[in-house]
Amino acid sequence: MSGISLKKARIIIRKAMDAGNAAGMKPLSVVVLDAGGHVIAFERSDGAAPGRFAIAQGKAYGTVMLGMAGKAQMARAEAQAYFMAAVNGVYGGQVIPVPGGVLVRDKRGTVLGAVGVTGDTSDNDAAAALAGIEAAGLLGEA
Amino acid sequence: MSGISLKKARIIIRKAMDAGNAAGMKPLSVVVLDAGGHVIAFERSDGAAPGRFAIAQGKAYGTVMLGMAGKAQMARAEAQAYFMAAVNGVYGGQVIPVPGGVLVRDKRGTVLGAVGVTGDTSDNDAAAALAGIEAAGLLGEA
Amino acid sequence: MSGISLKKARIIIRKAMDAGNAAGMKPLSVVVLDAGGHVIAFERSDGAAPGRFAIAQGKAYGTVMLGMAGKAQMARAEAQAYFMAAVNGVYGGQVIPVPGGVLVRDKRGTVLGAVGVTGDTSDNDAAAALAGIEAAGLLGEA
Amino acid sequence: MSGISLKKARIIIRKAMDAGNAAGMKPLSVVVLDAGGHVIAFERSDGAAPGRFAIAQGKAYGTVMLGMAGKAQMARAEAQAYFMAAVNGVYGGQVIPVPGGVLVRDKRGTVLGAVGVTGDTSDNDAAAALAGIEAAGLLGEA
Repeated sequence: MSGISLKKARIIIRKAMDAGNAAGMKPLSVVVLDAGGHVIAFERSDGAAPGRFAIAQGKAYGTVMLGMAGKAQMARAEAQAYFMAAVNGVYGGQVIPVPGGVLVRDKRGTVLGAVGVTGDTSDNDAAAALAGIEAAGLLGEA
Repeated sequence: MSGISLKKARIIIRKAMDAGNAAGMKPLSVVVLDAGGHVIAFERSDGAAPGRFAIAQGKAYGTVMLGMAGKAQMARAEAQAYFMAAVNGVYGGQVIPVPGGVLVRDKRGTVLGAVGVTGDTSDNDAAAALAGIEAAGLLGEA
Repeated sequence: MSGISLKKARIIIRKAMDAGNAAGMKPLSVVVLDAGGHVIAFERSDGAAPGRFAIAQGKAYGTVMLGMAGKAQMARAEAQAYFMAAVNGVYGGQVIPVPGGVLVRDKRGTVLGAVGVTGDTSDNDAAAALAGIEAAGLLGEA
Repeated sequence: MSGISLKKARIIIRKAMDAGNAAGMKPLSVVVLDAGGHVIAFERSDGAAPGRFAIAQGKAYGTVMLGMAGKAQMARAEAQAYFMAAVNGVYGGQVIPVPGGVLVRDKRGTVLGAVGVTGDTSDNDAAAALAGIEAAGLLGEA
């Protein structure tokens, strides 16, 4: 079976949120996108700011569309800001190039989609995403 | 507590999907928006088409922004197409004025948000949304 | 003095809302735009749907930009829907061509701006707008 | 009652403008948004430039959508310009990340909305917003 099932997406979201809670992070919001960049599932924790969906999606969207995880996107943005701005132009302004956007692969390395987490520091967001992806038996690249 | 908690949003989504499955509907996608039109939670059933998030959101978004459920929006669109088209313009093209967008109220009648369901016929979508909202102890207006 | 002062805009808004309340209308939202289509003042009544600003502005914006009140815009939309849709295209989708958008003139007939009212039926919205404009000593064209 | 009532919004606007006048600031424009980022009330002082609504809204919108006041947004923009630019992309270009966007909370700390002030220096704008929020018996975070 290719793709992230809804069942696995739910595990990713719950376990990412659990990891955030266990580490004392702020309330997290988590999105799971498929290999085409389309939303499978999303949840926003109680107490998170209302605009979190767009941030989570923006982190995950660039990740899957470029096949480049959030940390690599940030490195590129730091080195060549106009390039990432231009990429954002052709993707309709939907890309947020920072950690918390995490590629999801199966055991063979095939990209199945991406997870986007927002709410705490970008690095903590990425750690929570990785915890969720691992709990679902998949491989994350932050 | 005012608003729809994430816990209640999960109940709405699961029970709407259960109602769809029990009635033999096609795979449903369900979004729950807060009183400001912002996403609390979304799930897309396995087998649903990739673009379902935007449809579900579009049904729920106009519902909460106008305080007018999907059936009333459809009636207005049938009677005065250019009006609903113009409304969509000022809301950034985010409104899908058909059944399946359902207002969510508490026992006092206060609007807490909206649910958007897509995947089967518009009327079936609305029925599934109502089942989910009722299961969460809230009142739906389709 | 040309233009609608903030003091007069406040009178327009309060008196339009008072007229709505006195007539048993639903909670109204009222915007006052200047002769360039820019917002001077806006108020949304408690209990009105969250998206009312954009509707009020859309009614008033087309009114002042075209120099054509809401009723005339609606007549044009009924007769030639594609024309008003095209007009909306060049105005960035900001026009809602129905009653409730009312031109504001001084005693000499000079256009000073427009008022947009939304919340009840379009005709009631227009009546409330006219009441507010009259209370401010100005002339309204609905 | 949750949320900012229209009555409180009027107090915020008047008292912010009064504070600006008392301190010799330029003519201010003030918007009050609800917890979903939607306009409750706005006023532009006589003599202010025509485009002030969008600036005031932009300061308040990012504040409520991100749950982050203007000063924190500016700090983030100074440290990581491409991040705030990307955030603006996913919010439709509606965010102005400078002081003058102020979070509004009740006594328990719940975010009720945001105030946006523009017209003088960003720091003066923020001071006027805080004066208005305090006069309404609410807590501001600039």
